[in-house]
Amino acid sequence: MSLPLDDRGLLLGDGLFETLLVIDGEPVWWAAHMARLRRGCAALRLPEPTEDEALAAARQALTTAAASPRAALRLTWTAGSGGRGLDRPPLLAPRLLASLAPAPRPTGLLRLATVSVRRNAGSPTSRHKTLAYLDNVLARREAQAAGADEAVMLNTDGDVACAAAANIFWVEDGELFTPALDCGVLDGLTRAAVMDRAAVLGVAVREVRAGRAVLGHAEAVFLTNSLIGLRPATTLDERPLKRPPLLDALAEALP
Amino acid sequence: MSLPLDDRGLLLGDGLFETLLVIDGEPVWWAAHMARLRRGCAALRLPEPTEDEALAAARQALTTAAASPRAALRLTWTAGSGGRGLDRPPLLAPRLLASLAPAPRPTGLLRLATVSVRRNAGSPTSRHKTLAYLDNVLARREAQAAGADEAVMLNTDGDVACAAAANIFWVEDGELFTPALDCGVLDGLTRAAVMDRAAVLGVAVREVRAGRAVLGHAEAVFLTNSLIGLRPATTLDERPLKRPPLLDALAEALP
Repeated sequence: MSLPLDDRGLLLGDGLFETLLVIDGEPVWWAAHMARLRRGCAALRLPEPTEDEALAAARQALTTAAASPRAALRLTWTAGSGGRGLDRPPLLAPRLLASLAPAPRPTGLLRLATVSVRRNAGSPTSRHKTLAYLDNVLARREAQAAGADEAVMLNTDGDVACAAAANIFWVEDGELFTPALDCGVLDGLTRAAVMDRAAVLGVAVREVRAGRAVLGHAEAVFLTNSLIGLRPATTLDERPLKRPPLLDALAEALP
Repeated sequence: MSLPLDDRGLLLGDGLFETLLVIDGEPVWWAAHMARLRRGCAALRLPEPTEDEALAAARQALTTAAASPRAALRLTWTAGSGGRGLDRPPLLAPRLLASLAPAPRPTGLLRLATVSVRRNAGSPTSRHKTLAYLDNVLARREAQAAGADEAVMLNTDGDVACAAAANIFWVEDGELFTPALDCGVLDGLTRAAVMDRAAVLGVAVREVRAGRAVLGHAEAVFLTNSLIGLRPATTLDERPLKRPPLLDALAEALP
């Protein structure tokens, strides 16, 4: 399978994606991922994929790819073919692509580095999983060049926002903090699941706008996304972090 | 021709493009466009296309497409195929795509509207023509929804930056102003040509960081890019603008 060269996803980043965890061939949180994709379509003024076509594309990818106990299913929804320039054609015919790749649970160190590339707090795209993901690619590269594994991105207002490919939480004095969504943060499904779990455990979670200084005195920092679940960071800008038992308690209910 | 579905340009906006004006089959400012593409590659840490492969791709597009006295040649340089996730593969094999489309000189009104979508002043991508162009698509749409033809984008610091697909200049008291490149602005070739022309005419051009209020008392506003040359705006946020003779004098030397 291949893509026509006039696809607006390719030419302009005009489109969205979702990455789902697949366990033993079964996508996890399908309905929630589809709901988020539909919210992204509304924000970008794109037509939505139907449930049937999404299911058919997913099934196709799940059957043709080699089996793996943990895999990542990526659904890509492009604005479809268009003419030259920024303007979409009067009749959009979006394209749905699906692909599967092994996604073993990551192990080893997770060293974080705060990078210079900022999340755009002045664009709706920073709240959605769009195909215009280059800032995140560059943030990850910058972190790796600094000897780390993943980036901590601030937004253009200087507030802590997220990692290059995950939401971020931190712990201070037994309380849990995470950037508010209006910091330019993806509405992560695992982020929401961790917040629900914290409520069950009786732990307050504060959604905040906070500058990078707050991370300087956090005792623990962890990342969340659909593929890694909850992953504690080892260091932040080379400062060692703790791994309080709370993190395992929060992770317990995740797939 | 078509594109493999694991291309990072499609999946992540990881790549660059150039749009060249073609007059009677001849690309205009070829060397300058290629130099800018190479600067973009350096900023994104991508290998550069060779001059030979760029020329071959351009020639192919120029011969296969229907002749048009004024056309747009788009060169797209993607990071090539990669695995799942943000990290580039150890060995990058970028792809070069070229396409041609008619590009008659635009006529009619050019009504500008200041939009809410901001240029990211905190990312190197705002200085280059990357495939992560969705903010510009949304800016254009927002302007059109407001009854205008093109957007005026501020950056995340609130400074005037550019149009969705052009650089911007304004005139006040016979002086010429344009946003400084560090406002998060593409280093436009026509922008540079207009500045050179102004110098010849003995007109000062100030590259500034200036909030949107400055546009409220500009007597004239115009846009520049390779395809439109210099195009005077008719209105800005519904306020009529003048078209002083200076604009024609500046446009005279452009292709």
